Amino acid sequence: MSDIGVTVKKSENFSEWYTQVILKSELADYAPVKGCMIFRELSYAIWEKIQEIFDTKIKATGHKNVYFPLFIPEHFLKKEAEHFEGFVPEVAWVTMGGDTPLEEKLALRPTSETIMYATFAKWIRSWRDLPVKINQWCNIIRWDTKGTKLFLRTREFLWQEGHTVHATKEEADQEVMQILNEYKDLMENYLAIPVLKGKKSEREKFPGALYTTCLEAIMPDGKALQMATSHHLGQNFSKVFKIKFLDKEEKEQYAWQTSWGFSTRLIGALVMVHGDDKGLVLPPKIAPIQVVIVPIPYKDVDTEQILAKAKEIYEKLHKNGIQVVLDDRTEYTPGWKFNDWELKGVPLRIEIGPRDLKQGQVTLARRDTFEKTAVKEENVTDAVTKLLKDIQRNLFEKAKKILEENITTVTAYKDFKKVLKEKGGFIRACWCGSSDCEKNVKEETGATIRIVPLEKEKIFANCIYCGEEAKEVVYFARSY
Amino acid sequence: MSDIGVTVKKSENFSEWYTQVILKSELADYAPVKGCMIFRELSYAIWEKIQEIFDTKIKATGHKNVYFPLFIPEHFLKKEAEHFEGFVPEVAWVTMGGDTPLEEKLALRPTSETIMYATFAKWIRSWRDLPVKINQWCNIIRWDTKGTKLFLRTREFLWQEGHTVHATKEEADQEVMQILNEYKDLMENYLAIPVLKGKKSEREKFPGALYTTCLEAIMPDGKALQMATSHHLGQNFSKVFKIKFLDKEEKEQYAWQTSWGFSTRLIGALVMVHGDDKGLVLPPKIAPIQVVIVPIPYKDVDTEQILAKAKEIYEKLHKNGIQVVLDDRTEYTPGWKFNDWELKGVPLRIEIGPRDLKQGQVTLARRDTFEKTAVKEENVTDAVTKLLKDIQRNLFEKAKKILEENITTVTAYKDFKKVLKEKGGFIRACWCGSSDCEKNVKEETGATIRIVPLEKEKIFANCIYCGEEAKEVVYFARSY
Repeated sequence: MSDIGVTVKKSENFSEWYTQVILKSELADYAPVKGCMIFRELSYAIWEKIQEIFDTKIKATGHKNVYFPLFIPEHFLKKEAEHFEGFVPEVAWVTMGGDTPLEEKLALRPTSETIMYATFAKWIRSWRDLPVKINQWCNIIRWDTKGTKLFLRTREFLWQEGHTVHATKEEADQEVMQILNEYKDLMENYLAIPVLKGKKSEREKFPGALYTTCLEAIMPDGKALQMATSHHLGQNFSKVFKIKFLDKEEKEQYAWQTSWGFSTRLIGALVMVHGDDKGLVLPPKIAPIQVVIVPIPYKDVDTEQILAKAKEIYEKLHKNGIQVVLDDRTEYTPGWKFNDWELKGVPLRIEIGPRDLKQGQVTLARRDTFEKTAVKEENVTDAVTKLLKDIQRNLFEKAKKILEENITTVTAYKDFKKVLKEKGGFIRACWCGSSDCEKNVKEETGATIRIVPLEKEKIFANCIYCGEEAKEVVYFARSY
Repeated sequence: MSDIGVTVKKSENFSEWYTQVILKSELADYAPVKGCMIFRELSYAIWEKIQEIFDTKIKATGHKNVYFPLFIPEHFLKKEAEHFEGFVPEVAWVTMGGDTPLEEKLALRPTSETIMYATFAKWIRSWRDLPVKINQWCNIIRWDTKGTKLFLRTREFLWQEGHTVHATKEEADQEVMQILNEYKDLMENYLAIPVLKGKKSEREKFPGALYTTCLEAIMPDGKALQMATSHHLGQNFSKVFKIKFLDKEEKEQYAWQTSWGFSTRLIGALVMVHGDDKGLVLPPKIAPIQVVIVPIPYKDVDTEQILAKAKEIYEKLHKNGIQVVLDDRTEYTPGWKFNDWELKGVPLRIEIGPRDLKQGQVTLARRDTFEKTAVKEENVTDAVTKLLKDIQRNLFEKAKKILEENITTVTAYKDFKKVLKEKGGFIRACWCGSSDCEKNVKEETGATIRIVPLEKEKIFANCIYCGEEAKEVVYFARSY
């Protein structure tokens, strides 16, 4: 149990603040293996919430969960050339089983397209076997050689990966968009993180995809974070892995595919977007504990009555489906508990002291605004329900405001560089569509095109880099 | 979609029957990686059911889920000598990240004691930090060199592993038993598989444990299958990993630990114990689909009314929390559907044909006994609920009878060998307690002591092997 709060301010040393919040709230810890992390009970419980929300969504639309092997034989990974090139620099290889060298080294999945699709080819014969719509929750290995950043850059992380197979390109298009919209709902209406929705440029798309759609959020330090991606794979993989089916006219066709995913990096986004100088702030809809009740006994007076009242309130809220905890530990003071639960981001605290008891009320303290209100005991369920909704909305609105303030429209490259340097955030600019311009911008400024909006925006200038005629309005940013 | 049924009988070629049932029911498939398997949607859905049941149990008793890294540095694994010796022959090693050889090779977790306990030492300081009660659902790697057996022997499988830390030996004893009892409840009251409960002998205990408790079931071929284990680790690991705490008297103590787990091999047990010549038979409490409704249109007469009625019944059952599917596919005949759902083990089928429609009834067909009953439409929910309970109970009772018939008490070693050869099953015999006798029996017959009953049974003979005075009644068997 950590009893020392966060010692740096979010606005002063963002990176150090981020690490301290995670470690001190006991959200996660560094593992004793280089580049890896431990998901402690708080972050894992948040991940379970996210899983539950998204799993319900995709099951409702006919997707099923499966589990494919962790191991991918090297020759599989090599089959789709772009895909292999994209992933091989960060693959961890198993070369020994017991004390016997393996005949072929095995990659630990950096993503599962190749291992799954080799088998899809076996399962799919006819139009009757389509669509295939599966998903897998699993661990993923990417041997990053840069420094570890908890949740955002670790050699192992957790994710979901959906993989679907369709008879037509259009069906696959629809799947890509359906999932992207489900993702947006998850990010905005549960995690309370507003996102920009769009396509990736050719340079930034998934290796092996026809096109990639994605959601991007802005972090308080002005860097963008990719929250989820949904790829149309076209027939790139089906041709390589021979995923063919007989259509209703008995004609052989290559199938159309999609894949899509998000990972535990979402938890990192939650920390960054909502956290404050006191620690985590969790949106009520994904908080494993929504309400904590802290009894405040006064010099042994009323201790028993206060505790009895606290239990009564606990039962009432619990019965109404609110995730509530009664912190009746005697080895800690109320003040210590306040700090600890604030650090852990519990959205709402209920205090019950002698004065509350006397007046038949409880005191509600919001984590997001620190505002306190007294409510009559009999109204506690309604008041809590309403406040949790308010907090959820407030967190989203605050984040939305920050996103909006962090979109800067520029027309000149010198302004582009200035904004990037002084403010960061998304830079809205016009682009001629050339990969060279995109590459030069990246090399000169570190910013990449994060999204090309799905609905084309009106061109308002020439290309930000070459000055030629522009084809697209796009959003640049530096990113995690 | 497989449209060819199982072609061998369970009683004639058990091993081939087992594989056919799994592949043809689409429960699972071989992976294109040696020694690995694919959990297809049916087996994964069963696993999700099992997870849900057990997760609820352990959360109710204060356990929390976490996630630790897949990678274990070699020197960690080596710290507890017995543990290392027990696991190292079947460890898969990562030696390369990208194209760079690693400084220290990394084991893929064969179990997580060592990687977790190194960190527990950091987290635990005081009696206030105890107990620690965590659990992890994850993939496990054991590089078995024998042939693959789906669910029972694969190089990667899924499991849960619980790890707890306590202030006293007694508390750890209680934890071990609490979990063992939860396991028994899961096996018997959900999976409908009766088990023997006991301790392992010194030879058979978990490498590094003080003692191991376990549950053992009997398979129809007379071999035992270990269903779950719950270990008291004593202070063996806490001394090696320096998990110490200050007790209430400010004295430093080594902690007491437990670990416990079960794996996806349970799904293999389900197939073996309940399956029949037509395929899988799933106990209703863990069946992802409990009821399938098959409309039986007759020559286009009444097709629409039958379908409407089927939908009505579907809604009624669905609303009452029954996992029901309406199979309204037009590209398959009712007969084909019957076979397919029987193969997949759905406990109850509802048929609705022209005669049923006319008489305001539906026909219920049990998967376990093939018995059919007609019930009035208005009674369908009650009838289904009752039948599902009956099926659950019947499967358990059938399995219990088989377990009982498969326990043979012997007093002479020649009878021991004869029973083992001709019948298999558990052999109840007296044992002097010597590891040498146990080892000799194993070498000569292949049978090991599966359990030493927790409550000592009355000695009825001398040691089955050496003829000296016996100390324990034990249960031998050959096993998976």
